[in-house]
Amino acid sequence: MTFTALGKGAEFDRIRAIARQLGARAQGLGSDCALVRVGDTTIALTTDVSTEGVHFRREWLTFEEIGWRAVAASLSDLAATAAEPDGVLVALTMPTGEPPSTFARIMAGAGDAAASVGGVVLGGDLSRGAGIALAVTAVGRAPRPVVRSGAGPGDSLWVTGSLGGARAALTAWERGSEPDPAARARFAKPEPRIAAGRQLAASGATAMMDLSDGLAGDAGHLAAASAVSLVIDLGLVPLHPSVESEARFARERAELFGAKGGEDYELLAALPADAPPPELGTLGLTRIGRVEVGEPGRVILELDGKPVVLSSYDHFA
Amino acid sequence: MTFTALGKGAEFDRIRAIARQLGARAQGLGSDCALVRVGDTTIALTTDVSTEGVHFRREWLTFEEIGWRAVAASLSDLAATAAEPDGVLVALTMPTGEPPSTFARIMAGAGDAAASVGGVVLGGDLSRGAGIALAVTAVGRAPRPVVRSGAGPGDSLWVTGSLGGARAALTAWERGSEPDPAARARFAKPEPRIAAGRQLAASGATAMMDLSDGLAGDAGHLAAASAVSLVIDLGLVPLHPSVESEARFARERAELFGAKGGEDYELLAALPADAPPPELGTLGLTRIGRVEVGEPGRVILELDGKPVVLSSYDHFA
Repeated sequence: MTFTALGKGAEFDRIRAIARQLGARAQGLGSDCALVRVGDTTIALTTDVSTEGVHFRREWLTFEEIGWRAVAASLSDLAATAAEPDGVLVALTMPTGEPPSTFARIMAGAGDAAASVGGVVLGGDLSRGAGIALAVTAVGRAPRPVVRSGAGPGDSLWVTGSLGGARAALTAWERGSEPDPAARARFAKPEPRIAAGRQLAASGATAMMDLSDGLAGDAGHLAAASAVSLVIDLGLVPLHPSVESEARFARERAELFGAKGGEDYELLAALPADAPPPELGTLGLTRIGRVEVGEPGRVILELDGKPVVLSSYDHFA
Repeated sequence: MTFTALGKGAEFDRIRAIARQLGARAQGLGSDCALVRVGDTTIALTTDVSTEGVHFRREWLTFEEIGWRAVAASLSDLAATAAEPDGVLVALTMPTGEPPSTFARIMAGAGDAAASVGGVVLGGDLSRGAGIALAVTAVGRAPRPVVRSGAGPGDSLWVTGSLGGARAALTAWERGSEPDPAARARFAKPEPRIAAGRQLAASGATAMMDLSDGLAGDAGHLAAASAVSLVIDLGLVPLHPSVESEARFARERAELFGAKGGEDYELLAALPADAPPPELGTLGLTRIGRVEVGEPGRVILELDGKPVVLSSYDHFA
């Protein structure tokens, strides 16, 4: 069995138990993507679930956005592997009463998200169920795949774009308010960082992952997979403009609010200290920390020079 | 857009609406598998959902069987394409209260089903949800893929194994009884016909599909995809030994009960009239009808020389 070590959390305890149970019946668990060698090409595959009432509420999003968001989340794992998408398969579960137009609208959004990065909808499955749920499998080609396990001491840590926007939308909705349009867009129509992932790989990224559960928790997976410690200065983490006001409502420092926020689908990458970072234009790429020799999986989050302890999203905590 | 024509039914009306809506954003919908060319290899991909309360009830199956069955259903689509499995990705949704052992047991069954045909679990996703649901993506290689659309007038129609066993288990449970062990096994541990699919392809199969919703309805998809009519003699269809007694409870003729029964995951294949059928050993392969020039998508089911009209399972009817 090949199994990439994971960080802390009840969800990841379950994945560890599954990997133990499967033994030789599994291969490559614990990564952003499964990698399958086909001739001289490597195919990257990943599957991701998006469930009404868990990942989104129907009142928050249009049907097109529900489709877009689920597909973008899956494509984001391809981005983290530096893969170029071929397309997606969408297994769509819906209550029996939904009219055919709901299916078509969700799939239109799914198709737009795939097309936005050069992919297509390759297939799917329809089934009835209690609520709307999408299980999206993304498939692509990774000539030089990047995984989570290659970060080495001395590497610098970088993050694309800005963090906390999707969480700012979520907390606004949860307190009964309408999110700022920019924050809402981060939640409703996240952009898979396909081009950035490939540029980071070309710049020599030693490890990469996407931030779906939030920097605070996800960084632990990269640290565990690479058997290193990470030191992250939260003061350096680029924050979405909506974070400041939402963090005040949450009575939290903006830096902590941003580091806990998941579903921004930005990339976290390790680059050799001497590697010039790629030019990502308006998206931006920010150095936020470094890789160190230390307890495997340990992440030291610092703010104003002092260590802070944060949690992140866990489905089964 | 490429889109394989489908037979009748509300579920397939939804797929047609989706295909229309997607236009160029989709490719190859309406088939058992998506086919992606990689170098000189063709990769087959398929995704299939299995939901508690829709596809199975927890009281009927062990957790291992829930995992096996969901994976086997997806691998069955690879079989219908004459693909050799690499493995599966399993997106598993579970209620929060389930202990980690439930995940491990479901995935052990999933791993066993993959291993039974030379595949492995390549990855997955865990999420919380109202009930147990699995979305299984199977991936394999098809050096010479067979699709639904190649059947031509004059071809003979063949079915592997026997039909109606899974439905016999279902109707026994539904009338509060315990199914016959042989019927229960057909429902709980269906065997993906990977080897048979490849042998049929090697024998020159012009079209193939797996029978997941029942012969009566599924045959219409092959007829629509190939733009032909099919004539099937239900008196020739091999029936599972448990069908006879369950059909009596259902006050239905055994031949009709069997033709309506889904989830046997046997293969339906068209072979040129002069092609010697492959030797499938104890599994068996039976000639049940022929392909004719006629209204595209029309299936004439005959019994005792008279036409009969049957329905099959439809998620959204």
